[in-house]
Amino acid sequence: MSKQQKPSALHEKDGVSESEITNEASIQSIKHKRRVQPSTDELVSEILKGNITALSRAITLIESSNPTHLEKANAIIKMCLPHANNSVRIGITGVPGVGKSTFIEAFGLHLTEIGKKVAVLAVDPSSSLSKGSILGDKTRMEDLVKDENAFIRPSPSGTSLGGVARKTRETIILCEAAGFDTIIIETVGVGQSETAVHSMVDFFLLLKIAGAGDELQGIKRGIIEMADAIAINKADGDNLKSAKLAKVEFNRALHLYPQKDSEWQPKVTLCSALKREGISDLWALITNYLEHTKANNYFESNRTNQNKFWLLQTIEERLKSDFFNQPKIKEALEDQLQLIEEGKTTPFVAAEYLLNLS
Amino acid sequence: MSKQQKPSALHEKDGVSESEITNEASIQSIKHKRRVQPSTDELVSEILKGNITALSRAITLIESSNPTHLEKANAIIKMCLPHANNSVRIGITGVPGVGKSTFIEAFGLHLTEIGKKVAVLAVDPSSSLSKGSILGDKTRMEDLVKDENAFIRPSPSGTSLGGVARKTRETIILCEAAGFDTIIIETVGVGQSETAVHSMVDFFLLLKIAGAGDELQGIKRGIIEMADAIAINKADGDNLKSAKLAKVEFNRALHLYPQKDSEWQPKVTLCSALKREGISDLWALITNYLEHTKANNYFESNRTNQNKFWLLQTIEERLKSDFFNQPKIKEALEDQLQLIEEGKTTPFVAAEYLLNLS
Repeated sequence: MSKQQKPSALHEKDGVSESEITNEASIQSIKHKRRVQPSTDELVSEILKGNITALSRAITLIESSNPTHLEKANAIIKMCLPHANNSVRIGITGVPGVGKSTFIEAFGLHLTEIGKKVAVLAVDPSSSLSKGSILGDKTRMEDLVKDENAFIRPSPSGTSLGGVARKTRETIILCEAAGFDTIIIETVGVGQSETAVHSMVDFFLLLKIAGAGDELQGIKRGIIEMADAIAINKADGDNLKSAKLAKVEFNRALHLYPQKDSEWQPKVTLCSALKREGISDLWALITNYLEHTKANNYFESNRTNQNKFWLLQTIEERLKSDFFNQPKIKEALEDQLQLIEEGKTTPFVAAEYLLNLS
Repeated sequence: MSKQQKPSALHEKDGVSESEITNEASIQSIKHKRRVQPSTDELVSEILKGNITALSRAITLIESSNPTHLEKANAIIKMCLPHANNSVRIGITGVPGVGKSTFIEAFGLHLTEIGKKVAVLAVDPSSSLSKGSILGDKTRMEDLVKDENAFIRPSPSGTSLGGVARKTRETIILCEAAGFDTIIIETVGVGQSETAVHSMVDFFLLLKIAGAGDELQGIKRGIIEMADAIAINKADGDNLKSAKLAKVEFNRALHLYPQKDSEWQPKVTLCSALKREGISDLWALITNYLEHTKANNYFESNRTNQNKFWLLQTIEERLKSDFFNQPKIKEALEDQLQLIEEGKTTPFVAAEYLLNLS
């Protein structure tokens, strides 16, 4: 981007949504409509001022598959990095039906009321722009959408969880640089996405409702162990009694787990997002957690460890995809898997064979 | 090995323990003492007859770091494969102090009494021949050691869990070919070794004792979710009451977990290995499990999936070690980790940099 381009381009409305820029086919038409685009410096300067349009545009660059966009995105991230990290990152998961959107709206509104700036992101690898993601339907959070201290961004589209996770982590940095001090990352209660979200947040919340006996049905194995708190939602009216029982049951179960590295004992709390009840209690609980983990240095060391984890994770994923995407490996792998299925080879002999092919 | 060598070498006592063959320094002296060594064919033929000396010798080849031994080991495994798989593989874990050795002795003796042939192996990556492994001290199982229908083999030494796991999996094949129909794999209640053992067995048993409130202390996260049964040991005398309470508590906790792929509801049972009580109940429970998982085909599909898992796992480990063991990567990785620690780069930029170096 040359210096001649006008910064006013940032505020231009051209009728093209940010997300369309990821669509290769429409890039050409966007180029015609947007004659001028902001430079990297201009974008960063506007992001640091809290300009939401600039933030959205930069996130669109992160989400793009166009190499030029990615280069620009990397430059922006690098410039934003010194201004990032000053936030609380909260992961929220729960199976469909627990009232996640209603909860996040109530939670987000409570936070903006007490002076926070809230960014809501999502990690949902199954989503795509065409299919609509878990946060795609912003109408489900209509009050929060209108709140000028809240920023809602649906899950980036992507074929792999790794790709979606990378984009979300980079988006966190931009949001923080734009002054958002509370980052909420929503994910669905299935698949590997919880593990990914857990490794990019400071606090992990599991949203539940009191059920008919099978409290945890539908929740992936291991998620309860990740939770720093379990909030039992819809704890109102006729549900209140069973919610209280569920709280006792979960508290008992949580005490059976080994101590976390954070030395934090996970808590169970009740809330009703619909009635906006129990939300401030939950925030008080999170504040306690933050005081606790900042005092024992877990907060900082956890963030550093998360970054190191993502470095190694990214490399491992690339090594694997580079290996397994070779046509000759793809073919030979199928043969070897067949031999394994027939009990004619061992996994180790088969692995050796494949590694020697490469 | 040439055909001239006498099979009788198999039965020679030469004062050199099998494990010493892994010691490169002593190979030369062994060669002098053992003028003749059995051929691969001879070893396999003896293994299939249930010859323990041949089995031990072949396992020693698996555990060797000498490439010639490994080649021979691979040939033996391949020939044994068609005779393997006809066993029940049981993983047993528990922290030190739960009475694992006493339990395995009581359990193993019960099994040989009812006509089973029992092999006891161990996965303990921290062990080495010099330091002694968890099964190294065979005197802790003195009755089982003397039992001619039992075979006890300590953990192979190895620097990596991957290496130890590979050797153990291959050893299982040889034991099965030698007619052992019940394979017990012991592991310690710490580190990643449980996950490795869990992925090589049909049934996973967690051994516990009733404690003072903190029932699960010392047990690694996720292990309870892996267990197909929890046996509360030392349930005798004054301990019986608290053991019964612990049983209720664990049963309640286990019901909170999502259903396993095996559709098996994990059970809690009491036993006293010292008094040989509750052992036959536990075996009945395992028999139920086997009937259940064979009826719904989980038993077979799980074994196939385990083999496929190990194929991919082996490849991934090699790709990683090949990459990270490059001197230039080692050096650059340290620099990048430092930059991450100082917040000067993102994990993804750092990963890209390292991948481009290779």
